[in-house]
Amino acid sequence: MKHRPIKASILTQNLSHNLSRVKKMTNSLPTWAVVKANAYGHGLKPALTAFHDSEGVALLDMEHASLARELGWLGRILLLEGVFTENDLDDVVNFSCEIVIHHEHQVTWLIQWLGRQNSQIVTKFLADCPIWLKLNSGMNRLGFKSAQYGVSYEILKQMGCTVHHLTHFANADDPQVLPSVEDQWEIFSKATQYVEGLKSGANSAAIIGHPSTHGDMTRPGIMLYGASPSGKYDDIAHLKLKAGMNLRSEIIAFQELQAGDTVGYGSQYQAQKNTRIAVIACGYADGYPRSAPNGTPVWIGKLGNILDGQIAPLVGRVSMDMMMVDVSNIPYAQIGSPVELWGELNPIDNVAFPAKTVGYELMCGLANRVKQEIL
Amino acid sequence: MKHRPIKASILTQNLSHNLSRVKKMTNSLPTWAVVKANAYGHGLKPALTAFHDSEGVALLDMEHASLARELGWLGRILLLEGVFTENDLDDVVNFSCEIVIHHEHQVTWLIQWLGRQNSQIVTKFLADCPIWLKLNSGMNRLGFKSAQYGVSYEILKQMGCTVHHLTHFANADDPQVLPSVEDQWEIFSKATQYVEGLKSGANSAAIIGHPSTHGDMTRPGIMLYGASPSGKYDDIAHLKLKAGMNLRSEIIAFQELQAGDTVGYGSQYQAQKNTRIAVIACGYADGYPRSAPNGTPVWIGKLGNILDGQIAPLVGRVSMDMMMVDVSNIPYAQIGSPVELWGELNPIDNVAFPAKTVGYELMCGLANRVKQEIL
Repeated sequence: MKHRPIKASILTQNLSHNLSRVKKMTNSLPTWAVVKANAYGHGLKPALTAFHDSEGVALLDMEHASLARELGWLGRILLLEGVFTENDLDDVVNFSCEIVIHHEHQVTWLIQWLGRQNSQIVTKFLADCPIWLKLNSGMNRLGFKSAQYGVSYEILKQMGCTVHHLTHFANADDPQVLPSVEDQWEIFSKATQYVEGLKSGANSAAIIGHPSTHGDMTRPGIMLYGASPSGKYDDIAHLKLKAGMNLRSEIIAFQELQAGDTVGYGSQYQAQKNTRIAVIACGYADGYPRSAPNGTPVWIGKLGNILDGQIAPLVGRVSMDMMMVDVSNIPYAQIGSPVELWGELNPIDNVAFPAKTVGYELMCGLANRVKQEIL
Repeated sequence: MKHRPIKASILTQNLSHNLSRVKKMTNSLPTWAVVKANAYGHGLKPALTAFHDSEGVALLDMEHASLARELGWLGRILLLEGVFTENDLDDVVNFSCEIVIHHEHQVTWLIQWLGRQNSQIVTKFLADCPIWLKLNSGMNRLGFKSAQYGVSYEILKQMGCTVHHLTHFANADDPQVLPSVEDQWEIFSKATQYVEGLKSGANSAAIIGHPSTHGDMTRPGIMLYGASPSGKYDDIAHLKLKAGMNLRSEIIAFQELQAGDTVGYGSQYQAQKNTRIAVIACGYADGYPRSAPNGTPVWIGKLGNILDGQIAPLVGRVSMDMMMVDVSNIPYAQIGSPVELWGELNPIDNVAFPAKTVGYELMCGLANRVKQEIL
């Protein structure tokens, strides 16, 4: 049965290449490859294959931790938000996870839970499940302030836990905004200076731009998937990262416009002269951003060879299932011509930026109705 | 196994209620209930249950037409973009679908395909599979211009097809923009005045605002799901539509801010005084819009009774898995407090509008990782 022609290809080798770039930039420091949000929309399975050389993977949901073990992942697993209920700790032990503790109620849960376990489980938890205590160094999202941090650390150590340390940067991709990476790293370093344990702070932006914060273990996310932490492709063009996903579709119709004709909902584009419009089988219900304005780049390939193609501008408002492109300068465009919405030929950042968002949101928003193939 | 606390509940009775509102507004005209994009994110299965009283459902993908039949749907099915390849016509007959024809290549495919079939299949196609010829009356997306329309109509009639007529409005939700509904309806009426067949033009916005365009069969979409075609809740508040989906989560952490402290990526919110911030387990990778600004409404309920609650403002940039809300005025907020991101207590339009999008995009963008329950 034939589907609408839109398809996402997951490029396992490119994901793997991007991890090797991270390792190169960080003197082979251990990594938590961040695979939350279904590996930023790429799928946990291909991501685990691609990130085989990462010491650990970091994610959110116990269900995905369980799936990772099922898929044969023997490396470390970090639950980035820790547990959501006390009983989740049963599975933390079952799946040998490491957990973030970011709030007092999680300390309470752990104390209560350990109190209910037999010595075998307690021993296993203390041996297999290090805790990553999270400092709020200025982002004001998750984590303890410095004063409470020390208290929680002492409690956890007295319980016999292995405790490591992490924090998260609010502005690693933008040096103009405070608190700066340096401010936050200083607060983190101070709060953790007299305690044992590994230290982790660097997300992709800090891996790229702030080597002094690489610490003992980095946490690359967006760069593994070939997109820019800042949202600007130019900021990563020199890094030789490769796209993790090709989102491609086809031309399904044409319209011939005359000067003055408008296109699509809200008539947001008006032709200035005779214009040939191609209709593409891709809309916001596939995950393409409705906010993409006139001029957003779309790659139009030749029938049978997408590599032989060029960029054409989006025109009119993206609708639920379709979008329109001005192909007046692309005489080879025909019904069935292949189109790349984003990917190796058309960087996702170049679509996200004019749409006033970031590659992260587009990747994660890839719709379930888009068929995926793993390459 | 416990998941992150976010969950979407699909409100079948509300969807059903909304269809009855459409019927009331249109003197019980036959309807194509639009269920493309997985019923705007609500799921095909509950939608088919809810829209049992609709004469037909309209969708895009042959796979969903097949699924509808599998689920026992005996009513009409319209493929809104017709077939994507010639061979799709095999399944059109198999699943007794009606098809849009919007472009010459689809006429060619049909001629070629019919030429290859035995007389039994031809007879079945002509009896069971009416064609809805699509006129481009000014939207310049899919459809024939008036001149070509007549030609295609004659060809299809000579082949023995039953031919009906449809068009789509570009600006039914905004009377300020041209072409107007009236302009398009006039072009459509002229192009179809001497031909046989049913006529369909009215989407939700035209059902609500342009009774003269109701024609023989309406095509309600967004209003079935309880949201506004224009994106403004005030435009539909009087219609007594009900939300089709409740997206709910919980508070997972708190931060106490002092004046001057900032929150989240890009430090987009700065506290003016002591402020209590709640962290909610919902981010853009769940489908909540990253573009939602400070002040976007979030419903915070009491533990054990979400109905007893109030609106609080979003603060800081929505991140991938979390968002922050100012709960300084909500003393009952605690770890585990239920939160409605959008739904019956917090209309989806009131979230979409400040985020510069429409309810359509939010519904369709609900992420696969959000667990759904059908109520």
